[in-house]
Amino acid sequence: MEKAQNGDAKEESKDSIGGYDSLHRLLKDNLNPHHFQEVSRLLTGLNCGKAVQTIALPESATALSVEHGFDLQAFSFSADKEILREPRVVRVGLIQNSIALPTTAHFADQKKAIFEKLKPIIEAAGSSGVNILCLQEAWMMPFAFCTREKRWCEFAEPVDGESTKFLQSFALKYNMVIISSILERDIKHGEVIWNTSVVIGNHGNIIGKHRKNHIPRVGDFNESTYYMEGNTGHPVFETAFGKIAINICYGRHHPLNWLAFGLNGADIVFNPSATVGELSEPMWPIEVSRFHNSTWFESVFVCQARNAAIANSYFVASINRVGTETFPNPFTSGDGKPAHADFGHFYGSSYVSAPDASCTPSLSRTRDGLLITDMDLNLCRQVKDRWGFRMTSRYELYADTLARYVKPEFEPQVISDPLLHRKSS
Amino acid sequence: MEKAQNGDAKEESKDSIGGYDSLHRLLKDNLNPHHFQEVSRLLTGLNCGKAVQTIALPESATALSVEHGFDLQAFSFSADKEILREPRVVRVGLIQNSIALPTTAHFADQKKAIFEKLKPIIEAAGSSGVNILCLQEAWMMPFAFCTREKRWCEFAEPVDGESTKFLQSFALKYNMVIISSILERDIKHGEVIWNTSVVIGNHGNIIGKHRKNHIPRVGDFNESTYYMEGNTGHPVFETAFGKIAINICYGRHHPLNWLAFGLNGADIVFNPSATVGELSEPMWPIEVSRFHNSTWFESVFVCQARNAAIANSYFVASINRVGTETFPNPFTSGDGKPAHADFGHFYGSSYVSAPDASCTPSLSRTRDGLLITDMDLNLCRQVKDRWGFRMTSRYELYADTLARYVKPEFEPQVISDPLLHRKSS
Repeated sequence: MEKAQNGDAKEESKDSIGGYDSLHRLLKDNLNPHHFQEVSRLLTGLNCGKAVQTIALPESATALSVEHGFDLQAFSFSADKEILREPRVVRVGLIQNSIALPTTAHFADQKKAIFEKLKPIIEAAGSSGVNILCLQEAWMMPFAFCTREKRWCEFAEPVDGESTKFLQSFALKYNMVIISSILERDIKHGEVIWNTSVVIGNHGNIIGKHRKNHIPRVGDFNESTYYMEGNTGHPVFETAFGKIAINICYGRHHPLNWLAFGLNGADIVFNPSATVGELSEPMWPIEVSRFHNSTWFESVFVCQARNAAIANSYFVASINRVGTETFPNPFTSGDGKPAHADFGHFYGSSYVSAPDASCTPSLSRTRDGLLITDMDLNLCRQVKDRWGFRMTSRYELYADTLARYVKPEFEPQVISDPLLHRKSS
Repeated sequence: MEKAQNGDAKEESKDSIGGYDSLHRLLKDNLNPHHFQEVSRLLTGLNCGKAVQTIALPESATALSVEHGFDLQAFSFSADKEILREPRVVRVGLIQNSIALPTTAHFADQKKAIFEKLKPIIEAAGSSGVNILCLQEAWMMPFAFCTREKRWCEFAEPVDGESTKFLQSFALKYNMVIISSILERDIKHGEVIWNTSVVIGNHGNIIGKHRKNHIPRVGDFNESTYYMEGNTGHPVFETAFGKIAINICYGRHHPLNWLAFGLNGADIVFNPSATVGELSEPMWPIEVSRFHNSTWFESVFVCQARNAAIANSYFVASINRVGTETFPNPFTSGDGKPAHADFGHFYGSSYVSAPDASCTPSLSRTRDGLLITDMDLNLCRQVKDRWGFRMTSRYELYADTLARYVKPEFEPQVISDPLLHRKSS
């Protein structure tokens, strides 16, 4: 395995709690077996509604994970058996990874090295029979937008560029849909740049693209320096293995973005991301682990995806990149603190949430990883029928509210206490 | 203290984990102090972004909690100090309670007994200087909608009925805004019934009302048998202590409902609820405790309110009733299981979430309780300025999407793989 050159060792030590590398291990070593079992059940329940089952993978896949040192985990969600409809089980793979060379290396070498480190992980997915594989946001480059330097734009590619070509061969070889999030150069529209997911069909064909709808302007997330809000709406891609959509990164903070993919019929929404512990703020040290994590971003990462899966009755597959990326020139974060050269720790922890509030454990927070999940898409409609959130949603009311809100002359619905300015007795 | 007659003892035993009545105690007794501290920090972090501080209450309040046996906890959230604006600290109180007499008692006696058991809790809130007090959903009656029996409609009252009058005296005495959720009888519109929150001003006046917007039709939540979707929009009430709104119970499953209160300018949204462990399904036993809880409903209860607070940059104050309510006639739950006489355990656990993702610990899951929370409303705008979720929300896009969606001829935005029906290679 090629190991990221930037800061992995430092991040390992940050993981320590009470001298242990995970909460799971600390509790296991210090509680009696009965108490450990009860506490584990409770803590897993904290994040997961219904228990997921682990599934066995072929020897070829596990051998690759050992040889190349990436985390490999596999789970299945359960759904009810229906009378009139066969199960529609889809095997989904999520890849999280750190970059492969320092950000000072030649750009072409950096990209090529990421390709090389991803090959065995993609092979493991393919040989495990993954139907739909999703990579992290802007997987083919460092997440350099914190720098505000324009030279990183050179990493951008057209939708049918080298990263897409690299993945098309695997899609064809393994009969696998692949979602590839890249920095896109739009040749036909003045060479502008977008944050884009390319959907590659299981025959190696390009089905289409979607551009990130919501662009952050906060802390080191200087993305609006590079690209604007997407213009592709909320497409759902009908693939050989189901109807899927992509909510790229910061879009997960926007409930209406999740909603729109649901209205268009998605059964699985992927959330390829790049997110870090609370903008380096020392009061929220990065903590842990298998039982999810404790910084602002990290707990929100978990909360929002689960909530979206429940509210919209679909599966959400969340991916975050891994490692600390150090850049050649220092930059500030708009928080009055000294300039620094890294964005913070991308904490991995990729996982999948189901519409019935169950979810998988998460991948490692420091290592590359492949998470494989079997899901019966029938669960989506089962949950819709059971809870009726779509039926009870009153969209007419909200269509009207939003239509009024977007007008400059909008007046909020406020009922003021007529005694507001009377002196208190 | 008057103790609920129904099942409290049984619920206590359900709480046991590994022989302990809370996870907190199990860990404290079995880990060394250093490990306990680390694990506690981590687990609290799981649910809370930023640490809240405990605050001291007057002796008169704590004495009432001891004498009447209700849980009493008090916390404060922090906000930045601004240069041009003074802090706007508001003290909010939430009351959770079980019913006071068996559901077989005379209806008038049942209501009166609830009034009596609430008096000392309201007095404790008043003497603690609470500015805005909120009671649970339909606090003045058992949550009888599971039965589908129409006779429980007798509990309904006009907006200015006896429950409102009971609370008006306390509002005036303590200069306190009170939010009272009742079963409403709408005398002027054919005597129909609504699920309604009445907002009582700090001079004892009625400021207005809001009716529950989303009505469940699932399991034992047979509420649509009794009342329909509310017709009051999404009012924000401008009170002496800030702009507040009420998202009643099942409305918390609807992100657009949360959104609309935000668009109308709420700084605090109250969520008076009545919710139970997963419809009695035995595979998700009710587990715990101070570190929140593990059933479907319970984890969702936490997840949704926190998510709403973050997405909409306001405080969310969540209340759930307490105890198990047994009804005279058995009823079924639409799950093929035998008829039974109770709805399940209302697990209390009331808590407050802040827009910066911090939250308070929750109240007891078995006892009546009063949660007092100081919050600086300035935090709402600070978070809006920082994260910019409102600015980056693209409401125009969604106004258009919803306007199209509600038309019968709506066509989802689907991009189909043109090779969809080609045989795989």
